[in-house]
Order: sequence, then structure tokens, then C-alpha cells
Amino acid sequence: MSKYDVIVLGSGPGGYVTAIRASQLGFKTAVVEKESLGGVCLNWGCIPTKALLKSAQVFEYLKHAGDYGFTVKDYDKDFSAVIKRSRNVAESMSKGVQFLMKKNKIDVIEGFGKLKPGKKIEVNGTEYSAEHIIIATGARSRELPSLPQDGKKVIGYREAMSLPEQPKKMIVVGSGAIGVEFAYFYNSMGTEVTVVEYLPNIVPVEDEDVSKQLGRSFKKNGIKIMTSAEVTKVDTLGDGVKATVKTKKGEEILEADVVLSAVGIKTNIENIGLEDVGIAVDRDKIIVNDFYQTNIPGYYAIGDVTPGPALAHVASAEGIICVEKISGMHVDALDYGNIPGCTYCTPEIASVGYTEKKAKEAGYDIKVGKFPFSASGKAKAGGNADGFVKVIFDAKYGEWLGCHIIGAGVTDMIAEAVVARKLETTGHEILKAVHPHPTMSEAVMEAVADAYDECIHI
Amino acid sequence: MSKYDVIVLGSGPGGYVTAIRASQLGFKTAVVEKESLGGVCLNWGCIPTKALLKSAQVFEYLKHAGDYGFTVKDYDKDFSAVIKRSRNVAESMSKGVQFLMKKNKIDVIEGFGKLKPGKKIEVNGTEYSAEHIIIATGARSRELPSLPQDGKKVIGYREAMSLPEQPKKMIVVGSGAIGVEFAYFYNSMGTEVTVVEYLPNIVPVEDEDVSKQLGRSFKKNGIKIMTSAEVTKVDTLGDGVKATVKTKKGEEILEADVVLSAVGIKTNIENIGLEDVGIAVDRDKIIVNDFYQTNIPGYYAIGDVTPGPALAHVASAEGIICVEKISGMHVDALDYGNIPGCTYCTPEIASVGYTEKKAKEAGYDIKVGKFPFSASGKAKAGGNADGFVKVIFDAKYGEWLGCHIIGAGVTDMIAEAVVARKLETTGHEILKAVHPHPTMSEAVMEAVADAYDECIHI
Repeated sequence: MSKYDVIVLGSGPGGYVTAIRASQLGFKTAVVEKESLGGVCLNWGCIPTKALLKSAQVFEYLKHAGDYGFTVKDYDKDFSAVIKRSRNVAESMSKGVQFLMKKNKIDVIEGFGKLKPGKKIEVNGTEYSAEHIIIATGARSRELPSLPQDGKKVIGYREAMSLPEQPKKMIVVGSGAIGVEFAYFYNSMGTEVTVVEYLPNIVPVEDEDVSKQLGRSFKKNGIKIMTSAEVTKVDTLGDGVKATVKTKKGEEILEADVVLSAVGIKTNIENIGLEDVGIAVDRDKIIVNDFYQTNIPGYYAIGDVTPGPALAHVASAEGIICVEKISGMHVDALDYGNIPGCTYCTPEIASVGYTEKKAKEAGYDIKVGKFPFSASGKAKAGGNADGFVKVIFDAKYGEWLGCHIIGAGVTDMIAEAVVARKLETTGHEILKAVHPHPTMSEAVMEAVADAYDECIHI
Repeated sequence: MSKYDVIVLGSGPGGYVTAIRASQLGFKTAVVEKESLGGVCLNWGCIPTKALLKSAQVFEYLKHAGDYGFTVKDYDKDFSAVIKRSRNVAESMSKGVQFLMKKNKIDVIEGFGKLKPGKKIEVNGTEYSAEHIIIATGARSRELPSLPQDGKKVIGYREAMSLPEQPKKMIVVGSGAIGVEFAYFYNSMGTEVTVVEYLPNIVPVEDEDVSKQLGRSFKKNGIKIMTSAEVTKVDTLGDGVKATVKTKKGEEILEADVVLSAVGIKTNIENIGLEDVGIAVDRDKIIVNDFYQTNIPGYYAIGDVTPGPALAHVASAEGIICVEKISGMHVDALDYGNIPGCTYCTPEIASVGYTEKKAKEAGYDIKVGKFPFSASGKAKAGGNADGFVKVIFDAKYGEWLGCHIIGAGVTDMIAEAVVARKLETTGHEILKAVHPHPTMSEAVMEAVADAYDECIHI
């Protein structure tokens, strides 16, 4: 029986990163994967969707080339080429992980792994043992009883990024990051898109001002939005799909070619042997402590299968902390209050920390600052005047409670706020850190200035 | 005679920002401007060039639409429309400054201002007095004796951004930010471009690795680069221009339609009355202390006319510090070691702090980390795999000495390093600040990890 120091079950952004860090720390490491190295994120999530969205962005430039001084008379899209590019990017990234596994001398065990008592995993009838077993099996698209996925007419994100043909009409149920990214992509490609959101605002985890701004942008681009609305039934018997949508005004029946269900995720904890080992679970999450130990010594869990935001960067961070702790390093627990979230439709959304509402609910006396990109020279020069930066500070001690940005390229700007919050900045320090001109990032400085009534450009 | 608390001479990004901050602090303020509000930066520099470069970027997408799944059969550029868009952006921004002056109740005095003793300024025969006079007259394109500008065949940045016709061949002399931005723009538009740089590397103030990377990108795009080369003579008598270029190999004569001289700037300190007042000057810079006071009480100077980097964001920061100090606020002197610099060609360049060479020269024992965008999922998905992040840390105390980035959109990423350095971060803290996935900004975290041999993705 092969014996390892560390076996990681699952090779998504939690699993493979954990395995690499384990190997760096001197552990003999293996990773078990039932499908493709890199998991959902790399093969069916973060990465291939960004490739699709880049194509959408380029397509928008073709449509609006006249705004920039060019004439484009004859252009067309090849939907299958757009999909193919995305699949190629995913494939090359998955090969990259394969290379990293080899380079770091990590054994890749192919197959479905099942945990066994005594710190063992069985894969395809073979048993492997390890001092430390880390569960990183991730999650999949959640299915609602009212919206059973058949993979053809009612689909999840996975099918949505590899459809053989572009639908003419699409209903997107759920307006979290996955929902709005696909809504934007398909609308940009020419599909007629309706977004149905159960809550009163789209992108409901974001600050309300951000939700409203995205709503305006989407509507301007022709995306139909129904909020406080619920798909109660789908009828897939005819040519397309008929979805019954319950709103405050009553019931409405929408017709489409495809319904995309983007109502959240469900953890992959079935049949992996949790019960055999006796690992404790709360609803569909594995219970762990600050360093990702389960109730059974030698078994750990990280990423989407544990509580906390189901995000790739969280899974990676948790995995690194988990193995560093195992190695005896001094490690701090992850600060779940300082995890950024990004959405890559146009305009992009990036945020970290408290929304205005949450900050008030938590009892903070707050100062709010806001700076619109319409007042930014760089944004105007780039044709990106939509959106804003909104910042929230604690009025008493100056703590930076939250930062919410919507606009072009803002997902690359939120790191400033994350790092500054980690370093316990005050507003004054951000103000006095000279931001380069002309950049979109100046808007962060100006929003902070606005919170302190020192804003220059509004 | 009109009497003010503060008069600012010049309304560039130094002057107008200073005036706004002065007004916020309760000073009765005026600004003197001989031409257009916003100065060079806004009318003939930072902003309109970014508009041109955005058009170039869109044009690249038209040319390479096939890479993203689109076919473009019939497209064309309208050079004058590209120029016009840029002028419109500049005009609208200048109007924005006009609005800000009004909103902040700042008097705009139109005309050429001349300093007088006794804290006075004369403009068009009228005298104005103020408790505090702040000189912010900026700079213009420097003329070399060997390269006299006639504005037609030998031009500066100003003509370069408003040429009536696109040149077929262009020689760009000097490869600082202005030189390489125009080289990229014109090359992208279809002009045959040769860059002539006196020093051994293009963008000579940047880290050598960055210079090399930009050189490779430019050459790949068809830009000819001559380093350790000098234009010793231009002959404008014939149809075009003949430039004699001296290189290590000998002399070469290049022909072109236009030569762009981008060899730095010259301060605007002539005829503004410095001598009458007795304000001390060192070469072409006004001597100031940490709070921008000249040797004559009541007279201050900020921006390009003072020592320090001639950058818009530096001028603004200096002006704000200057008037805050005047108002009696507690202010710290500007940290000139933490000023970012940005260049907006493709790939973009952004950097702050020591280059590797400078850090070594300063006697630091350093740790260097580097992460290529070719290993970044977001970069690959976006088709932006060129470039890298390079970071330099002090090996002993962990101080972040320098950050150098070249790649797509990186000018919006450098603020993270600026803020982190201001907050006296160590590498470990950047590593443990969770950067969102998938973003280009992860590459900063990975480069830091590389410096500490903890990099995951290479």
C-alpha cells in the first residue's frame, strides 16, 4: 500500500494548490482526481468563463468601433469558435496543473476517491494511506426541485459554457456572479436574455448601489430583469421551454430555448466515505476548526465543502494555511472578513468587507465616500465612464470597513483595498498614498477623500 | 486691486488641484491660466494620449478579432476621427475643470501671469495680490540643439497628438513614457516607426527586465529600436526628414515623414518674474523646502518647476501638501521614494520604488521574485500572457523595495504596491492578503511568493 504524508482528495484550486504547498514543505504528497486536474474552477468555472467574457468584450468593440474612430462594415461571430477558444484556454491551464504536479513531484491518482477509517483512501479498489488526508472535493451546480436540470433545455453553468448552438432566447435563474456573467455573455452575443432573481436586487450580496448600477447597465444593454421573482415551474415538452415566473404582480409565463439555473451550489460530500470515517457534517458542509481539522484526527477539509464563501481564492488560502499548520509553521487563521469577491460581466464588480447596509446593521457609525468614474479622466479617455467606487469607513476609529467598485477592469483594483485593510490602514493613509495619474485606481483615493470631504474631482 | 488668500499660477494638475484644496480649506483662491484650464496634462498630455491609446487598443482587437471567435472582413481606420475623439475627451475634461473652479468659487484669471515683489501677480496689466502665491507653471517639450522643432517635420508631443495626417514613417527620438506611447500608437495605426534611444535600454528609468520585455514586444509588433544611438542632425530640406543617427557601428541616415522629439521636458520658468522677486533657482528648477516654500516668504512652487519627478500625480500631491501646510494642518512631507510611474503603451508598464540595479547600488541585500503572466489563468483567458510582475525585497528586514510590472492593464494594479509600501508592509503580509481569483493582481501575490520560494504557479 502506497503511503504518503499528505493525500488531497480533489484537485480544484483548493486541492492542487494545497498539494503544491505541501510538497514545498517537504511532504510526500498525492492528489486524487476523478475527472480533470484543476477541478471546476479551471475546467468549468473561473477560467473558461473569463475567456468567453473576453470574447464578448472584443465583440462589443467590433459593434462600437465607430466610437473609437474605426469603421467595421462586415463582421460576424462564430459562436462555436468562441466556445472553442474558451475550451482551449481551460485545456491549456489543466495541462499547466499537470506540469506543476510533475514539477513538484506530486503523484496524481486518477479515479473517485473514497475515505476509509485509519487515514486511508480507496481509489479504484486500491488503498492509499497518509498521515494527513485533506478533503477538497468542492461543489457543483445546485438543483432546485422546481428546476430539474436535463442538461439540454434546463442547464447548469457547465452546459452553459459549452452549448453546441447559441440559443435565441435564454432565461437565467439567479443573479449571483455566475448568473450575471452568463447573462452578459449571451446578451452580448445576441441572445435575448431575461434574468429572474428571487431577492429584490440582482447581485444580492453586493452593496445596493452596486446592484442598482448593474441593473441600469444591463437594462441599457437590453437584458430584461425580473426581481422578487421566482421560477415555480418549467415545461420542457414543446419546442423550447416555458417557465412559470411568480412575481408580486402575479404569474407570467416566459418562453425560451434554454433556462440556465444559477441558483447556487451544492457540496460534493456524497459517497466519499464521510460516514464510514465518522466525519461530522452540518447540513451539507464539513465542520472544521480554524485550521481545517475535522472532528477525526488526520482528516481535514478545505474549500467549498466547508463553511465560508465558496470561492477559488478562499479554497487556495485555506489549503495553504491547513498544510502550513500541519508542518508546524506559525500560522494565523484566515480573516473571513477580508475576502474579496469579483464578478466579471461588464461593468465588472469587485468588493471586500461590509456593505453600507451590513455596516449599519453591525452597529457602526459610518462615513461613506463615493466617486463616479464619469469624473475620472482615465475612464473617460477609455470610454469607461460607467460605475463608481464606494468606500465605507468607521467614523470613530477610521477603520476601512468596506470597498465596493463597479466599472471597467475593477477586479484588478480591489487588491489595494484587501491589502490596505489587512495592514489596518486608515483613510488618511490611503489619501496620502500617491495614486498614479491617469488611472482608474485614482477613483479609490478620491472616494476615500469624499468620505472625508476632501474629494478634488467632484 | 483684487486681494486673495491664495493665487495659483498655472492650472495644470498641480495648479487646479491646489486651488480646489485651498478653497476647501477656506482660502479665497484664484488661479491664473494663459491657455486652457487643466494645463498640458489634461489638454496635451496624460488624458488625450490615453484616448489615442484606447483607439489603438480597439484597432488591435479589430485586427485580431479572429483570435476571439469573430471574423472582420471589411474595416478601416479614420485617422482624423481617432484624433478628434482624443481632442473631444480633452475638451470635455477641461470643461470639467471649469465646472470645478466655479463650484469651488475659485476665480479664473485668464492671461500670462508675472510675479511681482510684495506678493503680487500682474496679468494683462492688472495686479492681483495674495497672502500666498503658488507657482505651478509646469513644463514643455525640451528642444535639443541638434533637433530643433519646426512643428511640422520635427515635432513635440503636442503636434504628435493632433497631426492633420498620419505619417507613413516616423522616427521617435527618446524612449521615455511619451516616446514609447507615441511609438506604440503610430505603429498600431500602421505608421512605420523607429525609436532612437541614447541610453542602452528603452524606457531607461525602468527595471532592465522591463526594458527588455518591452523591447521584445515592440519588435514583435514591427517597431524598430535603436539603442545607444543618437540623432546628431536632421535635414528637413527635401520631401521628408533625413535624420543622421550615430550608433556604435557608425552613422546611419534614416528617412521619415516626421521626427518626434521626446527627449524630456524643460520647465516654464522664463518671463514669469522669478528674477524680479528674487526667487532662487537651481538650473531650471525652483528651489523649495519640504513644504514647497521658495526662499522668498509668501511664494511657493510645486510640480514640474520644482525638483522631483515631473509627473501629474506628484504635482497634485505637492500642491495639496503645500496648501494644507499653509492652513496650519499637520502634514508629513511627501515620500519621493514611493511615487509610482506609469506608461500606457501595450504592454503597459507600472512601477514604484527601487529597480533591482538601484537596490543593489544602494547596498541592499535583496530577494527578488518574479511571476510571468503566461502562468496566470486570467491573463491567458484574456489573451494577455505577455509580461510579468517583479518584486524586490530587502532580505534582512523584509521591506518591499520595489515593484515592476509590465503587462495588460497593470497601470491600475500598482496602487496596491504603493499603498502597501506606505503602510510598511512585509512580503508575508502581501502573501497572506487573499487576492481574488482569477485576476491579474494575483501575479503580484505570486511574485512575492516567488521571492520567498513559496510561489505556487511556477
